Amino acid sequence: MRILGIDPGLQTTGFGVIDADGPRLAYVASGTIKTTGVAVGDLPARLKILFDGIREVAARYQPQCAAVEIVFVNVNPQSTLLLGQARGAALTALVSVDLPVSEYTALQMKKAIVGHGHAKKEQIQAMVQRLLNLPGLPGKDAADALGLAVMHAHARVSFEAMSRSTTLQRRQHAQFKGGRTY
Amino acid sequence: MRILGIDPGLQTTGFGVIDADGPRLAYVASGTIKTTGVAVGDLPARLKILFDGIREVAARYQPQCAAVEIVFVNVNPQSTLLLGQARGAALTALVSVDLPVSEYTALQMKKAIVGHGHAKKEQIQAMVQRLLNLPGLPGKDAADALGLAVMHAHARVSFEAMSRSTTLQRRQHAQFKGGRTY
Repeated sequence: MRILGIDPGLQTTGFGVIDADGPRLAYVASGTIKTTGVAVGDLPARLKILFDGIREVAARYQPQCAAVEIVFVNVNPQSTLLLGQARGAALTALVSVDLPVSEYTALQMKKAIVGHGHAKKEQIQAMVQRLLNLPGLPGKDAADALGLAVMHAHARVSFEAMSRSTTLQRRQHAQFKGGRTY
Repeated sequence: MRILGIDPGLQTTGFGVIDADGPRLAYVASGTIKTTGVAVGDLPARLKILFDGIREVAARYQPQCAAVEIVFVNVNPQSTLLLGQARGAALTALVSVDLPVSEYTALQMKKAIVGHGHAKKEQIQAMVQRLLNLPGLPGKDAADALGLAVMHAHARVSFEAMSRSTTLQRRQHAQFKGGRTY
């Protein structure tokens, strides 16, 4: 299963691609999409760069699913609105190429990667480097995106284990209820 | 010039298409795109409906430019974030088909259509009906979208008149400066 992690932002959007085979993870690619090439006030043009950039990453690396960070309300409502629009463009790019999207908060990602929700950027970078055997420290935005992809891989493994155990319990339950199927 | 007006919303997005030939306006189409068919919490799916819907409208009516309402921060920051994401998807749909996008606030649109910024929805509907010679009252969301398209048509006419007068003034200024070109 190839997973694309996206950490959306209006100025810089991080992306990270990994391959997950059960608990085994392998780094594929990571980087950032920057919208700094056009005028700051030209929101449609900035969203187009973001949209085209994510679709280009998806076309190049052919992920099967995506994990996107849930953004939060900012102290400044105008910033919240801008970040919301950037995230809307990012989600739209993913669903426009029919990728199933899972959403996680930064807190969930930090807990999954570092072990607690108060992890600093540097701790996420170091843990992502270790988990994916990277030769160097990934950039901050790319590390967050890779962290989301890793968290999604873990969540899938747990979910599958849970589904299996639920199926098992259901089967036992059915046998118990039936009572005479033995 | 065919203009597509868009009043973005996460639940209901209004659209309106008009033809503008200088000050002459003609109604082409209007309606709404609703995202109520999927689970309320499935934001990626809702944004996909919005994105696909706007692209479908653009493909069917072939507008040459778009006018989109600038949304505002809400009392509830979470609503601001959701509305921002919807607007991001709407803008992305327009730029993904290479439509030039102009942005106007609801206040600007109301002033242009009704004459003052405190106009009620019903007043916008009535004025849009009159301006476009509609046989019936347009729906509220469609009326806002048509109002944006009409406002953009007016803004273009004013802008062109202003450009012409500026060119004229420049020419006169050049002649005056030259002094001996007569």
